[in-house]
Amino acid sequence: MKTFYPKDLSTLEFYGLLQGAVAPRPIAFVSSVDSDGNVNLSPFSFFNLFSSQPPVLIFSPLRRMRDNTTKHTLENVLEVPEVVIHIVHFGMVEQMSLASTEYEKGVNEFDKAGFTQIKSEQVRPPRIKEAQVAFECRVNEVKPLGENGGAGNLVICEVLVAHVNEEVFDESGKIDPRKLDAVARLGGDWYCRASGASLFQIPKPLRNLGIGIDQLPEDVRNSIILNGNNLGRLGNVAAFPTDAQIAEFGRSAEIQEMRIRFQNDPDSLIDHLHLLAKEALDEDDVDRAWLILLQRT
Amino acid sequence: MKTFYPKDLSTLEFYGLLQGAVAPRPIAFVSSVDSDGNVNLSPFSFFNLFSSQPPVLIFSPLRRMRDNTTKHTLENVLEVPEVVIHIVHFGMVEQMSLASTEYEKGVNEFDKAGFTQIKSEQVRPPRIKEAQVAFECRVNEVKPLGENGGAGNLVICEVLVAHVNEEVFDESGKIDPRKLDAVARLGGDWYCRASGASLFQIPKPLRNLGIGIDQLPEDVRNSIILNGNNLGRLGNVAAFPTDAQIAEFGRSAEIQEMRIRFQNDPDSLIDHLHLLAKEALDEDDVDRAWLILLQRT
Repeated sequence: MKTFYPKDLSTLEFYGLLQGAVAPRPIAFVSSVDSDGNVNLSPFSFFNLFSSQPPVLIFSPLRRMRDNTTKHTLENVLEVPEVVIHIVHFGMVEQMSLASTEYEKGVNEFDKAGFTQIKSEQVRPPRIKEAQVAFECRVNEVKPLGENGGAGNLVICEVLVAHVNEEVFDESGKIDPRKLDAVARLGGDWYCRASGASLFQIPKPLRNLGIGIDQLPEDVRNSIILNGNNLGRLGNVAAFPTDAQIAEFGRSAEIQEMRIRFQNDPDSLIDHLHLLAKEALDEDDVDRAWLILLQRT
Repeated sequence: MKTFYPKDLSTLEFYGLLQGAVAPRPIAFVSSVDSDGNVNLSPFSFFNLFSSQPPVLIFSPLRRMRDNTTKHTLENVLEVPEVVIHIVHFGMVEQMSLASTEYEKGVNEFDKAGFTQIKSEQVRPPRIKEAQVAFECRVNEVKPLGENGGAGNLVICEVLVAHVNEEVFDESGKIDPRKLDAVARLGGDWYCRASGASLFQIPKPLRNLGIGIDQLPEDVRNSIILNGNNLGRLGNVAAFPTDAQIAEFGRSAEIQEMRIRFQNDPDSLIDHLHLLAKEALDEDDVDRAWLILLQRT
C-alpha cells in the first residue's frame, strides 16, 4: 500500500486521488435561478441521498482551486434557496458534459446544452423535460466546509416533489436500474454506465443472522479454490444442512463416483468438492454448495 | 411523468423511490470502535466525497424505520470520533454484504466477514488489509437530519491519511478505474460494477467555451439521425472549420460521389451526411464530423 498525507500533496494532486478513489459517484444535474430569474444548469458528482424522512439530497459545489471563486449554482442558491435535481441517464450524458462548461453568468445552459425547460410545481427553477427523474427541492441550509480553493459547500436540499418517468418502473412499481440507465462519475474523464453486464444482485443478508465466515469449516475458510465472494455467500446462511440431508446427498451418483476416484487422495477429494461447490455458488445455489462441501468426511 | 409527494407515500415507499433513483451510489465500508475498543465494520451507500481542501467524506447512517433505533456505527462515532472508510471493490462485495448483517453489539464484523484487521496509523479503528483504498479519518461533526425513523445523520469526516494499493495506479500515477474495479449500490438488491464496457470517457468541456447546441446549424439541431449525445459533442467545439478547410474536404472522392448521387434530392444528401458524421462521432472524431456536416450546401 502507498500512504498519502494531505499536506504532502498539492490541493490538485490530493483532489485527483480522492476523485479517483471515491467512485463511482452519482450525478446531480442541478437547475437554479438567481434573484432576477436567470436560469443556471450544472452537474455535480459530489452528491448523494442522505436521509429518507425527511428526504434529503446533498450536493457540494467546490470553491475553484485556481482562484478561490465560487460557482453560479452556489451563488444562486444563496439568493433563491430552491433547486431541481435531475438524475443523469446515458442518453443525455454528452449534453450534461457540455452544460458543465463555465459559461458566463446569465447564459442559460438549458439552451447551450439543448434541453427543454418546463415549469416546476413548487419551486422557481425550471426542470428538464428530457430527464427521467427530477426532484424539486427546497434548500434548507448551505454549509461551507472551508474557505480556500477546493473547499466544498454542502447544499442541503429537502425533496418536495419527485417526478419520475413511468418507463423506468418495473411491473411491481419499483425503479428498474436497467431502465433507468444511470451514469456515474469517476476520476479524470471517466464515467460509468449502470447497465447490462455491469449490474448484478446480491440478496440482502439474513435477518436471522448468517453464521459468518469465522464459523465456516477450516477447509472451506482456507480453500485455495473458493474466493472471498464465495465465502461471503457461504457465511450468509442461518444453519448448516442436517446430517440426514448431507447423508442423502452423499448417496448421489456424482458424489459416490468422486469418493471412489479419490479414495486414496483426501486432499484431491476436498479440492474437487470445492470446485463443484464453486459451480453451485456461481449459479446462486448456496444450499447445494453446502451439501457438496459437507461431503468431505 | 409520474409525480410523487413525500406525504402521499409511506416512509418505506418513498425510501424505495429515492434509493432506486439516486444511483449508482459509492459505498463507504466503515470501521469504528466504541469507548471500550470493540470494533464494528459496516457498509453505507449514503456516502460521497464533498470537499477537497479540507478533504471531507460524509456518510449517513439512518435511524431504523421499523423502530427508530440507531446503528452501532453511529453510536461508536459519538463515543470515539474516528473512522476508517474503505472503498469496496468487486472482489470483496459478498463479504461486505455479509458485514451488513445486524450482528449484536460487540460482534466484530471483521471476523464474521473474514477480513484481516491491521492497525491504523492515526486513528483507533483498525483498517481492512484486503481493501484497495482506506481513508483514516477524524469525525469533525455528526449532524442529525431528523429525529424519526428514516432520518439520516451526517457523519462529517476529515481525511488524515489515505492508503491506496499501488496496483490500482496507471503509469502516470493516477487511479485507473479499470484496476480499482469499484462497486456501487442501486435500489433493491442491485449493485453495479464499474469495469469493462460499463466504463467510458468524455473529454472535459472546453475552457475556451464550446459554441453550444443553440449555435448548431438548424439541420443538425433538428436531425432525425443525430441523437442528444451526438449534439452534445458537436456543441463542444470553440469554432467551426474554416471555409477553406470545408472546401478542401468537399473535394474528397466520398463527398463528390455523394453529391452526384443525391444531386436531385437535397434531403437525402443531408440525411446521408448526418449518417456519415454520426460514424465519425462514434469514433470520437469531432473535427471530421464537422467537415462532413458543413458539406450540405
